[in-house]
Amino acid sequence: MKPEQLSLYLVTDRRLSGDRDIEWIIEEAVKGGVTMVQLREKDLDTREFVNLGLRLKNILKPYNVPLIINDRIDVALAIDADGVHIGQSDMPYETARRLLGPDKIIGLSIENMEQLEIANRLDVDYVALSPIFSTTTKTDTATPWGLDGAEEFVKRSIHPSVAIGGINNNTATAVKSTGVDGIAVVSAIISADDPYKAAKELYEA
Amino acid sequence: MKPEQLSLYLVTDRRLSGDRDIEWIIEEAVKGGVTMVQLREKDLDTREFVNLGLRLKNILKPYNVPLIINDRIDVALAIDADGVHIGQSDMPYETARRLLGPDKIIGLSIENMEQLEIANRLDVDYVALSPIFSTTTKTDTATPWGLDGAEEFVKRSIHPSVAIGGINNNTATAVKSTGVDGIAVVSAIISADDPYKAAKELYEA
Repeated sequence: MKPEQLSLYLVTDRRLSGDRDIEWIIEEAVKGGVTMVQLREKDLDTREFVNLGLRLKNILKPYNVPLIINDRIDVALAIDADGVHIGQSDMPYETARRLLGPDKIIGLSIENMEQLEIANRLDVDYVALSPIFSTTTKTDTATPWGLDGAEEFVKRSIHPSVAIGGINNNTATAVKSTGVDGIAVVSAIISADDPYKAAKELYEA
Repeated sequence: MKPEQLSLYLVTDRRLSGDRDIEWIIEEAVKGGVTMVQLREKDLDTREFVNLGLRLKNILKPYNVPLIINDRIDVALAIDADGVHIGQSDMPYETARRLLGPDKIIGLSIENMEQLEIANRLDVDYVALSPIFSTTTKTDTATPWGLDGAEEFVKRSIHPSVAIGGINNNTATAVKSTGVDGIAVVSAIISADDPYKAAKELYEA
């Protein structure tokens, strides 16, 4: 995985898409500049999750944008996704790597410096500062890193990094200036009236 | 898998265990005669699910009782469980078999005769009539098979079968007399004051 593929990382949340088709939103966002997509679904049946994943894989393929599955390694294996993103309460990293093999992308959410030190000793493909700001999209998150924390994180991390949590047009430039390789957004694109335009503005920022 | 391993099949549900330790309940039930255990957890983090699965695997090993994971093939792979049980809205059977390989047990819930005909063309290890009676443990279930439906099911199925749904001491003998290889219970053991005694009585019935 190239670090620039983290530049504008879209994390999905169907609940924030209103009555609009999530597949349409994602394709518009990719046209606007999204460089990686993570499918995060906590309340779908496995079969629906697999089917949605397959449809997204087909949508993303022509754009050469990797599809990452949140948490569910079974779903990632079933659809031969490009990788998984795991948090600290998901599958342990070593198990995930064993099940997925050496070639798949594995990203790991990092909530504090201790977890970063551990990640530095692992062959993870990227790390996510989670969250950089407080957010309403996820309610179970740790203490936000903030901009100073992000700078320190970037200095200490040996892996490419992406920041997630409460990032929007107003904060994207400041976040990028901490040295992270990319920014990840959920509602800033999924809930935007025009996902294409929202992605384009974030990408340019 | 031998059909007699289905004789008394325990499906877990932590929510029905009151304030008692689910691992204790399961071991007591196995001492009382349970021949197979399915770990079904819909609201656990993946890491907790994996850890609970590992603890159960260690508990069951000395008794030579197979551990089956409901739905989550990633969890089954992570802990090298004996197999998985999948429903009609879980992973498609062919995908599950591809991910697990030929040697793992795969059981499939069957809600109607059409699904049974499909299962007869697959190399599933067992099929579950789901539900045989209406039940409060699962709320998303199909029309119950009933005793007559179960007899017809057993005649038509080429695979070993287990009945699940609302089975207790009063109905176990009637269900067994339909010709199914086993009965599966949740609350009849998990909620019992004495899980050992409850399992023993069901096993003897």
